[in-house]
Amino acid sequence: MKRAPAISISRLALYVRFLEDFARERARTTINSEELARGLDMNPHQIRKDLSYFGKFGARGIGYNIAELTEKINTILGLRRPWRLCLCGLGNLGSALAAYRGFRQMNLNIVAIFDSDPHKIGTVVQGITVSSTARMRTVVKQRSIDIAIIAVPTDAAQGIANQLTKVGIRAILNFAPVKLIVPAEVKLRNVDLATDLINLTHFLASR
Amino acid sequence: MKRAPAISISRLALYVRFLEDFARERARTTINSEELARGLDMNPHQIRKDLSYFGKFGARGIGYNIAELTEKINTILGLRRPWRLCLCGLGNLGSALAAYRGFRQMNLNIVAIFDSDPHKIGTVVQGITVSSTARMRTVVKQRSIDIAIIAVPTDAAQGIANQLTKVGIRAILNFAPVKLIVPAEVKLRNVDLATDLINLTHFLASR
Repeated sequence: MKRAPAISISRLALYVRFLEDFARERARTTINSEELARGLDMNPHQIRKDLSYFGKFGARGIGYNIAELTEKINTILGLRRPWRLCLCGLGNLGSALAAYRGFRQMNLNIVAIFDSDPHKIGTVVQGITVSSTARMRTVVKQRSIDIAIIAVPTDAAQGIANQLTKVGIRAILNFAPVKLIVPAEVKLRNVDLATDLINLTHFLASR
Repeated sequence: MKRAPAISISRLALYVRFLEDFARERARTTINSEELARGLDMNPHQIRKDLSYFGKFGARGIGYNIAELTEKINTILGLRRPWRLCLCGLGNLGSALAAYRGFRQMNLNIVAIFDSDPHKIGTVVQGITVSSTARMRTVVKQRSIDIAIIAVPTDAAQGIANQLTKVGIRAILNFAPVKLIVPAEVKLRNVDLATDLINLTHFLASR
């Protein structure tokens, strides 16, 4: 099977959310790719292509069984099990991420928070006692952390990434607007908050 | 010309940033789609397709002139002029967005901040005096706001969206994890901070 591009994976996440809403709101058990495409404002061919990376889905003329498709996509995305995350950096962005409902809805649970500020260490945020960054190795091991979120200031981001990879973290989501260097075995995703704004500037510029 | 899907627009933003870095770091004036694809970890066919929505770029065997391609993409994306944004909601996320360097780098300038908390109204954040949400009509007009960012709590998001569209805003970026309803002439983009995490759970689940 051809490896699915990252963008297809991102779209699968959109599909599964749409399917869950659609099934609940319309009390339906099946959906065809045209309905899925209309609901998502996408090309049906693109949807079939994204799904084709992972095998055969749906039956011609009947469409997809929603429950089955949801289950399969969740399996592909690794969302049928909970994940344990640590958050590095409890500034404004970190505090917002600690409280963000969208993560918990997907079974993505922040179970440790690191900061280097002595005034923050030991305080309780969203039910989690903030740990010193110096204790990263112990905490990551004890709490079986799978994924790290970097929300520290730009200048501190590479140092934190180095520490995280040294203690065995293999998946990092980086919010700092800087290119980080990590070993090849570590999966790094950069969040760029400006990208979505650019869809809006394009829209306004092309009216 | 076929209308480019939103996802192609998002990718154009990635291309232009990569091109700017590439030109600076390698002191190069041209690039071919294979180099572009390698640098971005993408399929060269996809890149050519994304660009094809906007006309003919590059010459066979020579590749793209970087300065020309950058200029053209920036024009398509509406990034050759500055944009004036208002930020609604000065909680943790709003405070992080007000300080986010990635926006200003792209000529996206937050020039007004709204909040309903009397303790925040009148204070100065990132050089901007926070306005009462009640004064939205006046401030949006006086400061010629093009785009609004919603960073209020989930329960307040639809109310703010209604106010924004009533005072003439036509482009909204929504960070609240809730589906908003806006008139057809308004372009709404929802930021989902969980989507990037899902690329990581997929990676960990499929190892």
